[in-house]
Amino acid sequence: MSKKMTKEELLAKSQQPSIDAMRLHPFYKGKLGVMPKCCIRNFDDFAIWYTPGVAKPCLDIRDNPEKVFEHTNKGNMIAVISDGTRVLGLGDIGPEAAIPVMEGKAILFKYLGGVDCVQICLDTKDPFGGFNLEDISQPKCFRILDTLRRECRIPVWHDDQQGTAAVTVAGLINAVKIVGKDMSKVRVAMLGAGAANICIARMIALAGVKYENMIMCDSKGILNRAREKELVESYKEKWEMAKVTNGGNVSGGPAEAIRGADVLIALSKPGPDTVKPEWIKSMAKDSIVFVCANPIPEIYPWDAKEAGARIVATGRSDFPNQVNNSLGFPGIFRGTLDVMARTITDEMCLAAAEAMAKCAEDIGMREDYLLPTMDEWQIYPREAAAVGRKAIEQGVARLNLTYEELLAKAEKTIKHSRESFHALQDNGFIEMP
Amino acid sequence: MSKKMTKEELLAKSQQPSIDAMRLHPFYKGKLGVMPKCCIRNFDDFAIWYTPGVAKPCLDIRDNPEKVFEHTNKGNMIAVISDGTRVLGLGDIGPEAAIPVMEGKAILFKYLGGVDCVQICLDTKDPFGGFNLEDISQPKCFRILDTLRRECRIPVWHDDQQGTAAVTVAGLINAVKIVGKDMSKVRVAMLGAGAANICIARMIALAGVKYENMIMCDSKGILNRAREKELVESYKEKWEMAKVTNGGNVSGGPAEAIRGADVLIALSKPGPDTVKPEWIKSMAKDSIVFVCANPIPEIYPWDAKEAGARIVATGRSDFPNQVNNSLGFPGIFRGTLDVMARTITDEMCLAAAEAMAKCAEDIGMREDYLLPTMDEWQIYPREAAAVGRKAIEQGVARLNLTYEELLAKAEKTIKHSRESFHALQDNGFIEMP
Repeated sequence: MSKKMTKEELLAKSQQPSIDAMRLHPFYKGKLGVMPKCCIRNFDDFAIWYTPGVAKPCLDIRDNPEKVFEHTNKGNMIAVISDGTRVLGLGDIGPEAAIPVMEGKAILFKYLGGVDCVQICLDTKDPFGGFNLEDISQPKCFRILDTLRRECRIPVWHDDQQGTAAVTVAGLINAVKIVGKDMSKVRVAMLGAGAANICIARMIALAGVKYENMIMCDSKGILNRAREKELVESYKEKWEMAKVTNGGNVSGGPAEAIRGADVLIALSKPGPDTVKPEWIKSMAKDSIVFVCANPIPEIYPWDAKEAGARIVATGRSDFPNQVNNSLGFPGIFRGTLDVMARTITDEMCLAAAEAMAKCAEDIGMREDYLLPTMDEWQIYPREAAAVGRKAIEQGVARLNLTYEELLAKAEKTIKHSRESFHALQDNGFIEMP
Repeated sequence: MSKKMTKEELLAKSQQPSIDAMRLHPFYKGKLGVMPKCCIRNFDDFAIWYTPGVAKPCLDIRDNPEKVFEHTNKGNMIAVISDGTRVLGLGDIGPEAAIPVMEGKAILFKYLGGVDCVQICLDTKDPFGGFNLEDISQPKCFRILDTLRRECRIPVWHDDQQGTAAVTVAGLINAVKIVGKDMSKVRVAMLGAGAANICIARMIALAGVKYENMIMCDSKGILNRAREKELVESYKEKWEMAKVTNGGNVSGGPAEAIRGADVLIALSKPGPDTVKPEWIKSMAKDSIVFVCANPIPEIYPWDAKEAGARIVATGRSDFPNQVNNSLGFPGIFRGTLDVMARTITDEMCLAAAEAMAKCAEDIGMREDYLLPTMDEWQIYPREAAAVGRKAIEQGVARLNLTYEELLAKAEKTIKHSRESFHALQDNGFIEMP
């Protein structure tokens, strides 16, 4: 303050940060990301951080609510919340225009206070680039997904529906290829009529299976037209299935549904005695069995094989052919975000499933290797590029890039994510247990 | 699958991840943190990432909504959302018990897909450890803060109220010390009766200023009992102020409010002609002037000094004595989280203000150095420890630690935050512009 500045000089001086801000915000595309704070020594560690290991800390919190501070980052995580009605001195500029300020605030929290902080802008439906719904019970999950998809301009996705479906379909594509059958002719029995199986039915139909060749069972038996009153009162998605599947109008239970089928897709209740060996015996030659209940499949793979199944897939990482959601959602969202898609369509999920299946085929598809595994990292950029291209074809993307450009873009982002994490871990910033 | 496993063997094998999970989740205290993704070359960069520079990208988004994808991380940021009603195979375990799963999902998104992902658990009021409200217009901000404070079991804070107040009070404490006056005797004129000044009034009262020695002005003049009808219709916080301040029941405008005052605290409208030099001339000897409107203070510091002010503080980083919110919120939240406090009381904010003032005093308090600057990093752990101790004293903390323990804890966390960020930046993971 050695000399008096004129208002003009002051304004000129004060414009430099604005000039830099307009140049550097687009350079970084925002200021705040997330980072794992736990070790990831190898892919087995995900069995600790995610299913199945994570169930134990969850139950510990359910039984001892204060344990949430031990098992999660809740104790160091805060939200910066604004509705954008009075941002800085700028007035009511709206919630989206407030994000740069809130991200700035969040990095101040982190850099100065070591506080993990994310921004949430209220009164808007989409402060994020996407929503991943998770672990919401049915039929509520259908209503929530439908409403959000209708009202949000960003992709909304329920992993227990589309995510599970995409990976299951990928496995099915290769299984059908291996046994040399034709997707348009296979007969599919589906055990369980929950959110996942209903979405799988929709997606395998897109992949070529005929609805009339599917038979779906809930806990009360086969879905068919005779159950109209009860199904309409249950939830409409089941009734929709009852109307289009089961071309032969078969009635009965799982035994009748499975008899003669080429494929069984079970997402019902934990086994190992939910599916009987004699039901498997009654299937067509070269039968394909997906028994995906957790933690114990509806029937053990060796029992299914003994009963004549040619290919068996489960949800477990310690058996071959794991139907693992983690093969799907990271690459699908990567591709969705990379083209700034406004939604995630079933066709985009199918494109991901086909890319996943092709990856396994390229690596060496076999009866006990239907699907790639999480550590075969090329699956993620390949899925992303396929999903991005499909979004462009369907007119739901905001960016237009070639397959090669999308592949390179996803590879770069994922590599950066992993390598920056390892730079932290290798330099001792992620303590080893 | 070379041999058949019994159900018992399978269960035993499947228990190892659970055992590790119960050991390692508390070891890391959660799995997901945030990380700046832009360069922080020095503290000047915060003028780009936060105020004043950030205003320009904000306005650019207001005028061109699609630019949000250029200026923010929205295009790579998604939320994992659950209400905890159907978590894994565990059923309805509630939203807090779902957090370990959602954090796990988020690190899968990041590590496998390079997607930044945070968790939000619906149907709960507090999936985070705290809320920092920001840029919400008044009087709505009072209602929101009051409601959230009443209904949440986690600290809720509006930085434009308590944050601004804490830093202003810190400056005032040192200013009063320098001029050798007594807090219980100073007369304070307050220009502006918005959320910030009302909170400052409450907090300087806690610091020893008598309410009857304050006079507060809004755009219509001095708050006094004669304005009851109009003020009650405006908002109750102003009327509360009118009832307790202005012991002499003075009426008039800023000229009358400021005449004879020891201190002027202006958070009103941008200057430089909002406060007249003759008003400053009319103040008591050794007057203290806080003129904190942005981007131009209500009067330029040299004009205020020429008119007789002894100490002048503003909101600007290019003048001495910047009243900078970034001196407050990171340390205050650090201390709040470090003792797992259930709320942030005004007394905790005052403790932070006192710690901040003491820091500046230790470094070398002068008329043009009332407050520390952001790069004097010891202020943050010192504030955190003071805030934590106050929370413990007031019975709102969940943990009991000594001052020294809190200081060491905050130092360690903040050091980790900065150094891990620099490990990324120095290894090229944060590209230089």
